[in-house]
Amino acid sequence: MNEGEVIAFSGGVGGAKLSKGLSEVLDAKDITIVVNTGDDFDHLGLRICPDIDSTLYALAGLDDPVRGWGRRDETWTFMSALKQLNAPGWFNLGDGDLATHVERSWRLHEGQSVSDVTRHLARSLGISADIIPMTDDTVRTRVRTSDGWIDFQSYFVGMRCEPVIEAIEFQGAADARPHPDALAALRGEALRAAIICPSNPLLSIDPILAMPEMRQALFACRAPRIAVSPIIAGKAVKGPAAKIMAELGMVPSASAVAQYYEGLIDIFVLDEADADAKLPTGMQRVVASTLMQDAEDKRRLARIVLAAAADLARAAR
Amino acid sequence: MNEGEVIAFSGGVGGAKLSKGLSEVLDAKDITIVVNTGDDFDHLGLRICPDIDSTLYALAGLDDPVRGWGRRDETWTFMSALKQLNAPGWFNLGDGDLATHVERSWRLHEGQSVSDVTRHLARSLGISADIIPMTDDTVRTRVRTSDGWIDFQSYFVGMRCEPVIEAIEFQGAADARPHPDALAALRGEALRAAIICPSNPLLSIDPILAMPEMRQALFACRAPRIAVSPIIAGKAVKGPAAKIMAELGMVPSASAVAQYYEGLIDIFVLDEADADAKLPTGMQRVVASTLMQDAEDKRRLARIVLAAAADLARAAR
Repeated sequence: MNEGEVIAFSGGVGGAKLSKGLSEVLDAKDITIVVNTGDDFDHLGLRICPDIDSTLYALAGLDDPVRGWGRRDETWTFMSALKQLNAPGWFNLGDGDLATHVERSWRLHEGQSVSDVTRHLARSLGISADIIPMTDDTVRTRVRTSDGWIDFQSYFVGMRCEPVIEAIEFQGAADARPHPDALAALRGEALRAAIICPSNPLLSIDPILAMPEMRQALFACRAPRIAVSPIIAGKAVKGPAAKIMAELGMVPSASAVAQYYEGLIDIFVLDEADADAKLPTGMQRVVASTLMQDAEDKRRLARIVLAAAADLARAAR
Repeated sequence: MNEGEVIAFSGGVGGAKLSKGLSEVLDAKDITIVVNTGDDFDHLGLRICPDIDSTLYALAGLDDPVRGWGRRDETWTFMSALKQLNAPGWFNLGDGDLATHVERSWRLHEGQSVSDVTRHLARSLGISADIIPMTDDTVRTRVRTSDGWIDFQSYFVGMRCEPVIEAIEFQGAADARPHPDALAALRGEALRAAIICPSNPLLSIDPILAMPEMRQALFACRAPRIAVSPIIAGKAVKGPAAKIMAELGMVPSASAVAQYYEGLIDIFVLDEADADAKLPTGMQRVVASTLMQDAEDKRRLARIVLAAAADLARAAR
């Protein structure tokens, strides 16, 4: 494949899978993965960054393929001891996973930025790709239900996504400064593709694009911009994307995702099951098998995405 | 046995064993256990209180009888993940033990005192005896070696007590306010015994008595004051007491411990192996089997200590 840098915008598990594929088919130093931090929260005095951790574990090969979150070969002694202490037990923290949160928290407490800590963790885990938070400022996703506004993790984990969502907000996004390396990559001459991973558009990608400068930079980006649908045949591969889209008045479909990204992407990769989905005028269609079940699936989808971007770049020349 | 309150001064494992015995032979509500906090330290952003935790685990029946510290049925996934992150791994933290440190740390961070948190932990673990830190102020034990002053845990765990100790200090002790409930117990009419547990005199009991008001209150206490020797036949049952006594120019013996407590205790309980040890004039001798290997040993020694105190109280009437 041709040379150049790639930037990928990612949320949790689905995005982490494609990021893993990209990191294996590209020279890892050419990839910047910009991760949603709207889901981050403080729990028991620890800073927890679910999407960054999913990305770290996936790229380090430590992710649990069955559970779909956290680390493989995990133990749960901490949680059972914690419950014995009558401490809040609604958010599951594996014993190995806890090392990430403890290490991150004391470093943040010492004054390091989320980026600094993320890069330290990535290096320690042997990851060459550059994983950065979307911002070092605080952006917090909140959802409105019939009971009012609540924090994202209370909804997502505490209430298992059961309440109907009436609205979503990203507190702090309007004033947050996007990570400078993300902006530099989007504006750089060396960029060969800007990729929106198959993550939840409303909860994982929107917080990133809710920062005006980031949205503007993606809008103005001259490299091919390409998104992969997280919806297959009307269903999310994992998580509540389809449920929430429906609650917010969208048809949960690949079409609706494509429409949501109109103006921000040039190419939309959608599953064979949605081959005929209607796309906005001018948006290029790539049909592929988008379900990533094993390592080869991830590499294959990464190659398809990169090839589509390369084709478009050649055509535009 | 007769009614009345008991106060016990304790360090880690040896003191925790006798405290456990006392809590089983007495009405638990009549016992105040005053625990050394000079060994406390902050590690990875967590507050660790080794002697309080040993006491909590012992009284809750959660202590590990083989390892001698930490919780039983422990797992170590956190430590192996932590080492993978290149984080400091010199201080072993079990997965279950970590729940105590995390729960304590965020509560301290919220503004609760060490006493508040200790009582919360004790209640959660079903402990009825009152376990209190010697003070809610910060006192930190430091030792001087040929390389200068170092923190206690760096010496104790990091260097496995290997360097020769030239001096010991308890930073903050001169200005620390002893826990008011400890002072109230020592000064109260209801006290039937003040007990110095078989803990390291120089590292576990001295920090408590280095607070002038506490020392004065024990000095002036009108109830029988009784210490149990942590040294048997010139050796510490556990830990570096004998080594450190020798390094500081004391003969490591039950005699030397008794002499060290002169003026502060009325009765000294020493092991059968030391039956003939020389005691300071006027100090009463009680010879017993002081090794506590099982639950019955702890109760037996507790009964001996309480009976000796009761005898002295009767004789003084």
